[in-house]
Amino acid sequence: MTHHPAVPTLLYCVGILFSLSSTAQSTLPIRVNGQRINEHLIALSKFGANPQGGVSRVAYSEADLQGRDYAVGLMKKARLDVHIDAAGNIVGARAGSESSLRPLLIGSHIDSVPMGGNYDGAVGSISAIEIAQVLDEKQITLRHPLQVIIFQNEEGGTIGSQALGEGLDPGRLNLVSQSGKTIREGTRLIGGNLDQLAAARRQAGSIAGYFELHIEQGGRLERERIDIGVVEGIVGIVDSEVTIEGFANHAGTTPMDQRHDALLSAARFIEKVNQLVTSIPGRQVGTVGWIKAEPGAYNVVPGKVVLGLELRDLDEKKFVGLFNQVRTEADGLGKLNETHFSFSEPVISHPALIDNGMKKLIADTATSLGFSTKSMPSGAGHDAQEISRIGPVGMIFIPSVGGISHSPKEFSRPQDIENGANVLLQTVLALDKR
Amino acid sequence: MTHHPAVPTLLYCVGILFSLSSTAQSTLPIRVNGQRINEHLIALSKFGANPQGGVSRVAYSEADLQGRDYAVGLMKKARLDVHIDAAGNIVGARAGSESSLRPLLIGSHIDSVPMGGNYDGAVGSISAIEIAQVLDEKQITLRHPLQVIIFQNEEGGTIGSQALGEGLDPGRLNLVSQSGKTIREGTRLIGGNLDQLAAARRQAGSIAGYFELHIEQGGRLERERIDIGVVEGIVGIVDSEVTIEGFANHAGTTPMDQRHDALLSAARFIEKVNQLVTSIPGRQVGTVGWIKAEPGAYNVVPGKVVLGLELRDLDEKKFVGLFNQVRTEADGLGKLNETHFSFSEPVISHPALIDNGMKKLIADTATSLGFSTKSMPSGAGHDAQEISRIGPVGMIFIPSVGGISHSPKEFSRPQDIENGANVLLQTVLALDKR
Repeated sequence: MTHHPAVPTLLYCVGILFSLSSTAQSTLPIRVNGQRINEHLIALSKFGANPQGGVSRVAYSEADLQGRDYAVGLMKKARLDVHIDAAGNIVGARAGSESSLRPLLIGSHIDSVPMGGNYDGAVGSISAIEIAQVLDEKQITLRHPLQVIIFQNEEGGTIGSQALGEGLDPGRLNLVSQSGKTIREGTRLIGGNLDQLAAARRQAGSIAGYFELHIEQGGRLERERIDIGVVEGIVGIVDSEVTIEGFANHAGTTPMDQRHDALLSAARFIEKVNQLVTSIPGRQVGTVGWIKAEPGAYNVVPGKVVLGLELRDLDEKKFVGLFNQVRTEADGLGKLNETHFSFSEPVISHPALIDNGMKKLIADTATSLGFSTKSMPSGAGHDAQEISRIGPVGMIFIPSVGGISHSPKEFSRPQDIENGANVLLQTVLALDKR
Repeated sequence: MTHHPAVPTLLYCVGILFSLSSTAQSTLPIRVNGQRINEHLIALSKFGANPQGGVSRVAYSEADLQGRDYAVGLMKKARLDVHIDAAGNIVGARAGSESSLRPLLIGSHIDSVPMGGNYDGAVGSISAIEIAQVLDEKQITLRHPLQVIIFQNEEGGTIGSQALGEGLDPGRLNLVSQSGKTIREGTRLIGGNLDQLAAARRQAGSIAGYFELHIEQGGRLERERIDIGVVEGIVGIVDSEVTIEGFANHAGTTPMDQRHDALLSAARFIEKVNQLVTSIPGRQVGTVGWIKAEPGAYNVVPGKVVLGLELRDLDEKKFVGLFNQVRTEADGLGKLNETHFSFSEPVISHPALIDNGMKKLIADTATSLGFSTKSMPSGAGHDAQEISRIGPVGMIFIPSVGGISHSPKEFSRPQDIENGANVLLQTVLALDKR
């Protein structure tokens, strides 16, 4: 509008008011509703709540189904166009003003480990939905189409995001997930279409970018009193199921020197993994997180043990080398009491380095909002790692109190969650403008 | 009958014939039907059969209930007067000719460990029923009342026989058995009357004796080619549930030096138990037979481990001393990574020495039947141990092929089973004559 000199004063004044109002709207800081995010997190935490706090909302469980329904409801309230893709991921779409632009993705997951916490995955999922809600309330249309995605079964091996990224190996569908269901059964249960699984995969270069807000799950940000972690890379992981076969026999009548005790060999193995991983410098970690001994009674020498081994590092050569060393040492341990070690085909999740442009965008945005930042690796695997196969990704970390995660005691402060969500919102707006 | 001198020749001859027949009957060897015993063992092994052989017929399971029904059927066929006592034991009674005499007991158990074999307990139970069957078929009335007893839940801590012997501590009723049911629930399920539990207890001195036929469960008889083992004593046992509390945390984000890994401490504990038990001379054994790690996932440092420890020896002082040493060492292991060990109140099963008279009776009987014998301790606990509190007991062992027991591969040869049952039968007859 140009101002005509002959325009009456009143109209002129109204014009100025309009102009002021318009200016105010574009410079008034657009912010998430932190209270709403935290209320939604509390509401979500009811699904699969443990008596001692946190949740056990493993993928494909009743609690997971309920949590997904809750998320779908929030997405619809934010006027997203919601559908379940062939891989079982929940996708909420919002149109952009320039239809030629590739979609911009934000999201995370809502499934948990057994006896997990209320923040891992949930913070990023609820905050991504909040971004859509705020954009809707402020009637802001991005140039890019926006997709809010809740990936399925992150804790069981980033299943949903892998289906989008490099594609899901059909063999993995037969793996039994924590719920007791195979990934095939579970994916069907949550509305995936296995016949169309390949269609869930996205072409490399088909997205403008993906941002994921997540709790750090380590203690560095809190210890160093940093508001926002800018993730520089995500560690790779090798998992293998280790089977130790000995011989079950009566614990009272079998002399110590005639036993083939699979649990004794397993014990030596667990100690050896710890020794190998800690014997070299670096940030690599190695864990035996689960174990089953058969037949499992006071009065029977265990004849068989199965356990889960995983090793992580940013350097794939390093963790693969360690894995091979563990295998070699296991053979030696087995010889001590004539038990036999075997390893399932190792499942490798490759390390992912984060795009420099995305790192800078997040760091600059956080700084402009007045937050302190720190560049750091992620010791945990994330859906972002899988999505990095198809486009640039960025990850925003907020502090985990005491560095505790995958535990009912996992906690992130409401203010930190709000801060992270605001960084996510502003980063989305900033990328959209480019 | 006295012979009258005026009796006619025919009647005299009939008298001689009767007399001859009577003599023949008493000197003709009375033997068990070995084929029938082995057929009954095969029939019993269908209840709770594992796909890979042997049975999982843990006390109070559906298979246990079916096995008990089967045993009751056999007892009724042997014309025993069957009832379930207040503790849930199956008691089959047969009247004796001298009502003033105390009952003579024979029996064993039919419950198994998970993934157990077809012989442990079953051989003694089926053979005891066979003795009653043979006595019925031969129309032999013993002087003593005979009671064939199938004790309930031997593998879960000689529950049924303990109720008869020193009485069952009410606290033990709350223990969860392998079936997942408490002993209270299970005992009710199998027909026990918990309000009358004290009535199941028998007074010391109230029985003439108890004999139990059992497989050796070790490999000595087979290795030394001995037919019959004469048990000289039964080892005592101390059991304790050990809880290790650490801190569950994310396996990717928690540096190795900041972990409180309960499974790593458990591994060190298992190795330490082995070291302590094998560091001194003797036949003592120590076993960690079951273990549970929580939460139990590849990507979570285990926060809690619970495991089962047991130690055995003929000398109670020795195994209690070892147990105390293990506790002390555990404290030190916990300090290594700030985990905490706690031990449940140890459950002690006292060693039992076998009555000399009973040993001699078994050894003499076996020798008179042409069998080679060996005096030996029992490394396994048995119902006989509990019954030794109320009267003299004797145990007859037969060879276990390869010394394998508490395993689907447990095996005893049909001929050895028949031999053992004949020794049991003749020992009963011998004791009855005293």
